[in-house]
Amino acid sequence: MARIVMKFGGTSMAGTERIRRVANIVRKQAEGGNEVAVVVSAMAGETDRLVNFCREANPLYDPAEYDAVVSSGEQVTSGLLALTLQAMGCKARSWLGWQVPIKTFSVHANARIDDFDASRLVEHMQAGEIAVIPGFQGLSEDGRISTMGRGGSDTSAVAIAAAVGADRCDIYTDVDGVYTTDPRIVARAQKQKYVTYEEMLELASVGAKVLQTRSVSLAMKRNVRVQVLSSFVDDDAPSADTLPGTMIVSEEEMDDILKEQKMERQTVTGIALDKNEARVVLTRVPDKPGAVAEIFLPLGEAGINVDMIIQNVGRDKGETDVTFTVPQAELARAQALLENLKEKIGYNRIITDANVAKVSVVGMGMKSHTGVAASMFKALADRGINVQAISTSEIKISVLIDADETELAVRVLHTAYGLDAKDEAA
Amino acid sequence: MARIVMKFGGTSMAGTERIRRVANIVRKQAEGGNEVAVVVSAMAGETDRLVNFCREANPLYDPAEYDAVVSSGEQVTSGLLALTLQAMGCKARSWLGWQVPIKTFSVHANARIDDFDASRLVEHMQAGEIAVIPGFQGLSEDGRISTMGRGGSDTSAVAIAAAVGADRCDIYTDVDGVYTTDPRIVARAQKQKYVTYEEMLELASVGAKVLQTRSVSLAMKRNVRVQVLSSFVDDDAPSADTLPGTMIVSEEEMDDILKEQKMERQTVTGIALDKNEARVVLTRVPDKPGAVAEIFLPLGEAGINVDMIIQNVGRDKGETDVTFTVPQAELARAQALLENLKEKIGYNRIITDANVAKVSVVGMGMKSHTGVAASMFKALADRGINVQAISTSEIKISVLIDADETELAVRVLHTAYGLDAKDEAA
Repeated sequence: MARIVMKFGGTSMAGTERIRRVANIVRKQAEGGNEVAVVVSAMAGETDRLVNFCREANPLYDPAEYDAVVSSGEQVTSGLLALTLQAMGCKARSWLGWQVPIKTFSVHANARIDDFDASRLVEHMQAGEIAVIPGFQGLSEDGRISTMGRGGSDTSAVAIAAAVGADRCDIYTDVDGVYTTDPRIVARAQKQKYVTYEEMLELASVGAKVLQTRSVSLAMKRNVRVQVLSSFVDDDAPSADTLPGTMIVSEEEMDDILKEQKMERQTVTGIALDKNEARVVLTRVPDKPGAVAEIFLPLGEAGINVDMIIQNVGRDKGETDVTFTVPQAELARAQALLENLKEKIGYNRIITDANVAKVSVVGMGMKSHTGVAASMFKALADRGINVQAISTSEIKISVLIDADETELAVRVLHTAYGLDAKDEAA
Repeated sequence: MARIVMKFGGTSMAGTERIRRVANIVRKQAEGGNEVAVVVSAMAGETDRLVNFCREANPLYDPAEYDAVVSSGEQVTSGLLALTLQAMGCKARSWLGWQVPIKTFSVHANARIDDFDASRLVEHMQAGEIAVIPGFQGLSEDGRISTMGRGGSDTSAVAIAAAVGADRCDIYTDVDGVYTTDPRIVARAQKQKYVTYEEMLELASVGAKVLQTRSVSLAMKRNVRVQVLSSFVDDDAPSADTLPGTMIVSEEEMDDILKEQKMERQTVTGIALDKNEARVVLTRVPDKPGAVAEIFLPLGEAGINVDMIIQNVGRDKGETDVTFTVPQAELARAQALLENLKEKIGYNRIITDANVAKVSVVGMGMKSHTGVAASMFKALADRGINVQAISTSEIKISVLIDADETELAVRVLHTAYGLDAKDEAA
């Protein structure tokens, strides 16, 4: 017997038939003697419809009213799932954000949750009642509905799992786990049984869209065991207890698992790609103290997220080329802003290129293994792939390359780090 | 300067453009220096969509979950109207039922509101902020969302008008007032400037669908001045202050108005029709004490609303035919129930007929005028219309006739009671 939080996304909740499928998965967990809370998204497409209504009503919308409107999508699906569970003979009720209440702080439309008092919820769960909770919403400090930004339901689920002290938070999605890389690109990609929070965080932040980044960092902070698994499995498939998906665990738990299975930690556990970056080059920037700050401070103040930064030595003394990346969606804004600052910064030309991709290798093993970066550059160079920029963290190396070479680079690296599945498993 | 509650139905709220139209009407009232609260319905069709989802999820749905689902329709439109008003430069915010809170009692899905503390609402209205309130919903005693049954938004509006002490409750609808009868049947029907609560109540209960019956009785009880007017008027049309619709007032106020205008009270002010009744005849029921109770007690216990009742003397001594009407929607259930009780009641045959209509004449003047019923029967008899049953109240006479003769009967009576518009007004 365990206490479990289950989360289902919009595709799983799209319509009566799919909700019945979800209810079946939930019922099995409840009938197995577990205490269950379910967190649900709005039906696929519904949030977009509601956001559009808000935009039409008022392009500069008041986030508090936006929250009242868009939160209704999850309100509907949580009521419908409770009704469907009841039709199957389960005890169930919906708990809207303000009823729990899931107190949030910070602003409307981008609210945060951390901890909240879930004692009433737990009481009902202990009495055998399935709690159905709309994701993405809470009660703001001003006593109104707040929402947590697109994709916020994952974070809701993790926060609820922490608050009720759940043994596990199962995130049901349209993929059946975390793979070594995107299986649509590499047919021999392997599903991973375990990934650490740190690895998942790096993977999420560089384009692996399995989980929302914020949900992973909250899980790490609150030490919630998160499992990613598919809601599109046959009714006869093994239940969640037999671990068909990927479990996200702490580094300590991972060490214990490896020790038990007498396995070595892999150097690289995942390869992610991100085609949403654009490259900006400012040529012949004066090479003097404070010059770089003149570039990046205004971008930061405008809320434009700068990622990779490289400073090349220029052709002339006292000058340097500065290269960096920004999200493609922000490129036009960044360019306009920098053009306004041309004299102040003192650069010569601005060159932009949206046809770039960021490929990242991630793995806890990098902490103890050396030469990971060197082997990456060699593997890419052997296939003639030019690296335009590099950025690294303790467990991640990212390179910026020509977008046309993305899939090739991913495949080359997948093989180079020994991640390809063996023939019998492929 | 006045404090006004305005209510808009689903047709007026169906889509961005119509909501903008509504916002314009509201803005004019606010710019006139009035304190304004607006009560809104869900977009036309939305509540049906949500009710269908509930039925698909669970045919025997839990009313508390049903309420959580269907209340979302009004939540959306109230947020959107607030956003639209803000876009026009008005101060506005939405107040969901649980935020006011509009406390309700009795059961889910058919909750009632009477009085509630509206002091926070009034504070905001006094500060010049337009309050936008979803109709049809409140906060139930168990701390969850409650809804008030289909059409409950009229009742919400009246209850809110009473709670904030409004000078007037304007109900905007797809007709522009209360007519002497349905203008689609009688081209010379006239819009009435004033109607009393009692008359409106009788008209609403016999098929004039302008206002929900419960909202009229609440208005009468709490003495709220209700005005019915159309939301589909040109932007240049006279504003609500110039009384383009019909005002529903107390008998005393009506007397004052008539005195001031040196007018006599009309005997009959409205003619309504209702094609949703069905006739049931039980033949040769034993004519003994308690026999009739054997028929009507079980129907009452089954929640079947019996309206007109006639007892004819039968052909044989000691027996009688009993005729009554039930709603057509309940006919099958009533018939099954009575067939089960055939031996106990001791009747001979059961005859049913759904091809009947109830035509009613309503007017406060009946209290002081005699002969109203006699002139009704004579007018109908002159055109060969057979009356199958009669029921009366202090200010209403209803007759049951063949459904095919409904429109003819309405026209005959409209002329007979002098309600036809003069040529110049037609």
